[in-house]
Amino acid sequence: MSLAELSTRLRAFAAARDWEQFHTPKNLAMALSGEAGELLSLFQWLTPEQAAQAMSDPELAANVEDEIADVLIYLVRLADVLDVDLVKAANAKIDRNETRFPRIKDA
Amino acid sequence: MSLAELSTRLRAFAAARDWEQFHTPKNLAMALSGEAGELLSLFQWLTPEQAAQAMSDPELAANVEDEIADVLIYLVRLADVLDVDLVKAANAKIDRNETRFPRIKDA
Amino acid sequence: MSLAELSTRLRAFAAARDWEQFHTPKNLAMALSGEAGELLSLFQWLTPEQAAQAMSDPELAANVEDEIADVLIYLVRLADVLDVDLVKAANAKIDRNETRFPRIKDA
Amino acid sequence: MSLAELSTRLRAFAAARDWEQFHTPKNLAMALSGEAGELLSLFQWLTPEQAAQAMSDPELAANVEDEIADVLIYLVRLADVLDVDLVKAANAKIDRNETRFPRIKDA
Repeated sequence: MSLAELSTRLRAFAAARDWEQFHTPKNLAMALSGEAGELLSLFQWLTPEQAAQAMSDPELAANVEDEIADVLIYLVRLADVLDVDLVKAANAKIDRNETRFPRIKDA
Repeated sequence: MSLAELSTRLRAFAAARDWEQFHTPKNLAMALSGEAGELLSLFQWLTPEQAAQAMSDPELAANVEDEIADVLIYLVRLADVLDVDLVKAANAKIDRNETRFPRIKDA
Repeated sequence: MSLAELSTRLRAFAAARDWEQFHTPKNLAMALSGEAGELLSLFQWLTPEQAAQAMSDPELAANVEDEIADVLIYLVRLADVLDVDLVKAANAKIDRNETRFPRIKDA
Repeated sequence: MSLAELSTRLRAFAAARDWEQFHTPKNLAMALSGEAGELLSLFQWLTPEQAAQAMSDPELAANVEDEIADVLIYLVRLADVLDVDLVKAANAKIDRNETRFPRIKDA
């Protein structure tokens, strides 16, 4: 499924629950940040080494996937209500970063 | 461009700058949360009505697109280093949410 | 109890649980941000009017106090491990803000 | 200066700039989370060892103090508009944590 199809699914999900009234840019930016905070909390007491092995612990892996999913869900909803093309915006930013941060080795 | 292609582009971008050493799960979760906070700050003093019109102000719109891009970029990098399929994880979460939050109207 | 006494209490609390090893600046900044995100999530679906009345709902009020407490706890711990005087730092910042943002009315 | 005096100073600061209209609980929770995100960003690419030495770099130290100050400022403003006693709330939370997390050594 593409990101566009995910966006359509989420739009229908919100409509079927009469949640569009809550999905304002301000509220969605808050929800996105809150979920990013929950994701963060999964890693906060881990050493860098433990965090790098997070996905080999099934319970932690499930929580990580769950929080990553929530971040993507609110990001896609926010982009939809603001009419922002997510992948296009990311590519435009990477184009600018190509100039700001020169390559130091051949890939 | 698909999300998979964006992920490949970002992986090459990091490799060409020797940034893989910084792109640990813990650091990327921090960067993601920091960028979500910057996005949040664009809306913090706006009324709900002003926030809903954010994209009709060209300067604010550019900043919103820029911060949304940064959130997506770090989310895609994090999913890549953790080997999480972003869209699959989101769909699995929406499947669970379909059960948790019943529809109240036909879409 | 003053903020200095709270800091001393929290330092002893951490020591008695052998948690100093986890209370690094990086980890505490993550915990602080995660708790700020939980606080945010309490307000995310509320209208401005509902949020302004948050403390008249006993259950919500208890959650708000709980999350505010968590933010302060991690902020005080972070300031302690970094040896930052919180109130002094805040006053120095307000001094700078007095210049940046002129008064528009007599208080 | 005590936290109560800091709160009074911040209240007067907001009043003198007609900012009370912006200092709603929802907006202040957003500002708090945004500033916690900026603090986080100062540590995101540092190793745990580098982060532990943050205050020996004068420029980084100044930025850390600045962001810590901003977090405290918005936390104090939020507690003021919600009429929450910050230190009392923190102590009540630590009381509960004393039970949840037993001591493992004598302090």
